[in-house]
Amino acid sequence: MLVPVILCGGAGSRLWPVSRELHPKPFIRMGDGQSLLQKAYLRGAMLPGVEDVLTVSNRELFFKVQDEYREVATRKLPVSYVLEPFQRNTAAAVAAAALQVERSHGAQAQLLVLAADHLIQDQEAFAAAVARARALAREGRIVTFGIKPTRAETGYGYIEAGEGNDVKRFVEKPNLDLALDYVASGRFYWNAGMFCFSAGTVIAQMELHCPAILEATRACLERSRTAVAPGTTQVELDPESFRQVPEESIDIALMEKTERIAVVPCQIGWSDIGSWEAVGELSPADEQGNRVQGRALLHDSRGCYIQSGQRLVGAVGVENLIVIDTSDAVLVVDRSRSQDVRHIYAQLKAQGHAAHKLHQVVHRPWGSYTILGEGPQFKIKRLEVKPGAALSLQLHHHRSEHWVVVSGGALVTNGEREITVGANESTYIPAGVKHRMHNPGVVPLVVIEVQSGPYLGEDDIERFDDQYGRQ
Amino acid sequence: MLVPVILCGGAGSRLWPVSRELHPKPFIRMGDGQSLLQKAYLRGAMLPGVEDVLTVSNRELFFKVQDEYREVATRKLPVSYVLEPFQRNTAAAVAAAALQVERSHGAQAQLLVLAADHLIQDQEAFAAAVARARALAREGRIVTFGIKPTRAETGYGYIEAGEGNDVKRFVEKPNLDLALDYVASGRFYWNAGMFCFSAGTVIAQMELHCPAILEATRACLERSRTAVAPGTTQVELDPESFRQVPEESIDIALMEKTERIAVVPCQIGWSDIGSWEAVGELSPADEQGNRVQGRALLHDSRGCYIQSGQRLVGAVGVENLIVIDTSDAVLVVDRSRSQDVRHIYAQLKAQGHAAHKLHQVVHRPWGSYTILGEGPQFKIKRLEVKPGAALSLQLHHHRSEHWVVVSGGALVTNGEREITVGANESTYIPAGVKHRMHNPGVVPLVVIEVQSGPYLGEDDIERFDDQYGRQ
Repeated sequence: MLVPVILCGGAGSRLWPVSRELHPKPFIRMGDGQSLLQKAYLRGAMLPGVEDVLTVSNRELFFKVQDEYREVATRKLPVSYVLEPFQRNTAAAVAAAALQVERSHGAQAQLLVLAADHLIQDQEAFAAAVARARALAREGRIVTFGIKPTRAETGYGYIEAGEGNDVKRFVEKPNLDLALDYVASGRFYWNAGMFCFSAGTVIAQMELHCPAILEATRACLERSRTAVAPGTTQVELDPESFRQVPEESIDIALMEKTERIAVVPCQIGWSDIGSWEAVGELSPADEQGNRVQGRALLHDSRGCYIQSGQRLVGAVGVENLIVIDTSDAVLVVDRSRSQDVRHIYAQLKAQGHAAHKLHQVVHRPWGSYTILGEGPQFKIKRLEVKPGAALSLQLHHHRSEHWVVVSGGALVTNGEREITVGANESTYIPAGVKHRMHNPGVVPLVVIEVQSGPYLGEDDIERFDDQYGRQ
Repeated sequence: MLVPVILCGGAGSRLWPVSRELHPKPFIRMGDGQSLLQKAYLRGAMLPGVEDVLTVSNRELFFKVQDEYREVATRKLPVSYVLEPFQRNTAAAVAAAALQVERSHGAQAQLLVLAADHLIQDQEAFAAAVARARALAREGRIVTFGIKPTRAETGYGYIEAGEGNDVKRFVEKPNLDLALDYVASGRFYWNAGMFCFSAGTVIAQMELHCPAILEATRACLERSRTAVAPGTTQVELDPESFRQVPEESIDIALMEKTERIAVVPCQIGWSDIGSWEAVGELSPADEQGNRVQGRALLHDSRGCYIQSGQRLVGAVGVENLIVIDTSDAVLVVDRSRSQDVRHIYAQLKAQGHAAHKLHQVVHRPWGSYTILGEGPQFKIKRLEVKPGAALSLQLHHHRSEHWVVVSGGALVTNGEREITVGANESTYIPAGVKHRMHNPGVVPLVVIEVQSGPYLGEDDIERFDDQYGRQ
């Protein structure tokens, strides 16, 4: 029994403006339309012996993660979630996952820890490496995957291999001279943060090397709510006791200490997609070395990567630039400086600017909404309501809402009346009137909502009943 | 009597994406919120002895020009328009203006020909130069304004001054060596395309030097419709006869030939705003040499000009770039290459891409609309209807329209009913129903229109009655 454990965290501040605090790197879509998270899920789900995929994620991302999986799931595979109220580094996440897997599937069950925001392009080589790791895990080893380096990268940690699958040592990010030596030696591998072990082994080894983390996590799990529905198990970590868990990386807490450590060297087409430069390299270049995703017109420009959604990007007489266009922000960065995009993200965060946090598409339990425009006294949203879902019964004091059904059908509570609104029809909810929208159909309901009134803040809402338990 | 004649033409393709075919350079707003056209109007209107401002413009821009003037007009100054069905170069435009001024104000009236898309920052020096020009014009001279050159510009024509206000010769765009000599000599001035003469003089001189142009223009004016309303005279040039007018510049047709030519040298803070580089220079630079209009965050970047409307521009590790952000297109260009932006414009035009032609704000006789968003089966517009104005009585076969009044009040014809829709109220017009919107109030009416249906093209419209005579 193998449980892929997907660690879905991290802001991806170097991939701003596509990544945001509430739309982090795992949700970024690649050229083929799949997100990194969907790729991680499929990568795990396609392995033999998998009957459960466990995701450790921030609880605010729960509905978003579910939506991603639903979009690509090809078979009825049970999924589990450990939902963190905040990040507490990887040792806590791995401990929680191991304890949860032991509880659900027993100590013999194996965990395969995967990052949600890396790319692995050779699934066959990956599956072969996992098979080797599982054999070692069955012997009680804690297995890391060592990526054969393709360049003298100074941004990663390295693993020095010993005899057989033994590990001689872990080394932190080296300087360039050391990195060149490492690559030349043939004994050093990139530490990709992927691991394989049985639940029993990792728990026993954490007991030995980082008992405080293990015990605090165990105590937290005991105080946490577990919701079980057919095919889904959902553990919501208790914030107060989760805060007691020491904050440490699994590398430092366990990997660098345990004698059970092993490494499986591999060449699996791995990339951590650590910058726009890395994303750009996934697209084919034209004769001038330009790579374009979306709509762009280039004149006398070379070596550029342009990514654009709706809008047109024109470039004239520029070289080695990366231009990333989104609906509310555009980034222009020199290719050699793509690591420094995080400074912009940090500045935005420090200024409290929404462009670091949200996209114009916002996910909700009932579906999603996109802000299409706003101005004095009006705001326009496109709502997409999932089949069977409903917004809360609510009331606004300062705004009227006008709903135009674009596709699907809506069952609308409008004051005392309950009415059906079909495609190309509309209804009008004056300020102060209780209302609710429900999608009784089997296809998504798409509605254009025009809000009008003197105050249009999201906080002008009184909720009376909500099927998702929101206040 | 002095009539400022504003020549409002030219695409301004080097200022894409802010300038478009239907939003050309004169309409571009400067940092102070005024457009170049408004500045040209005020520049003329503020001169002594002005009782009429005449604008020569494409007829498609008529409502837009009117709106611009209304926004800044401080006194009830009569305005006249000569509306061209298409461009026919400057000799035709000047001939039409001279004949129109002679007809309205007599042969003694003086014309001051100004470009709608240049900037003159020293109004006092300008007024003094005009006074000198008028004195010469009274003596029957054809007066040009010679701008004292500030650099060895190879993109302009030059005027070599002789004795007094005499002109020795006109020279075409020189190469760099010649331009350096010209500037060093102190006798050469930039030809800014500004002129002053009496109607009688210029007509007589055109009779002598370019009679075909003058006579064809006279014939065209005779076949053209003139509409006179209080304060406004509007001549719509007849397309068929206007096409008979030879296409030539006024410089070649007249200025380089007439012995009456004179030059008034001046230093008036003139710029032709010929590129984004020139626009950037109007903004103050910070310590890193960066200039920003709008919202931008720069990290380790130098010498950049960033202009942005709604969205945020982030720049990392870049130098000497110009970034111009608009709602549907973004331009990134090296500062030294800003003249080459016209290549992007030309490519877009060749491809038939709307981004060369229209902005998302579209002017109509009744006001304007902005496309806020569109998607499968829906399109959303913000309509602004001027006080007293009305859209045509119309019908759509394939779409319903939903109107939400955001401010002001609307009188709506909806099938057989006539209803009043106030702020924060809405109404719904099903496909196939005749409808009309009228603003009976004294403040602008702002409406959010949501169109929904299987086909949303602008050509799904049947008009029954239109107060602007549109079909």
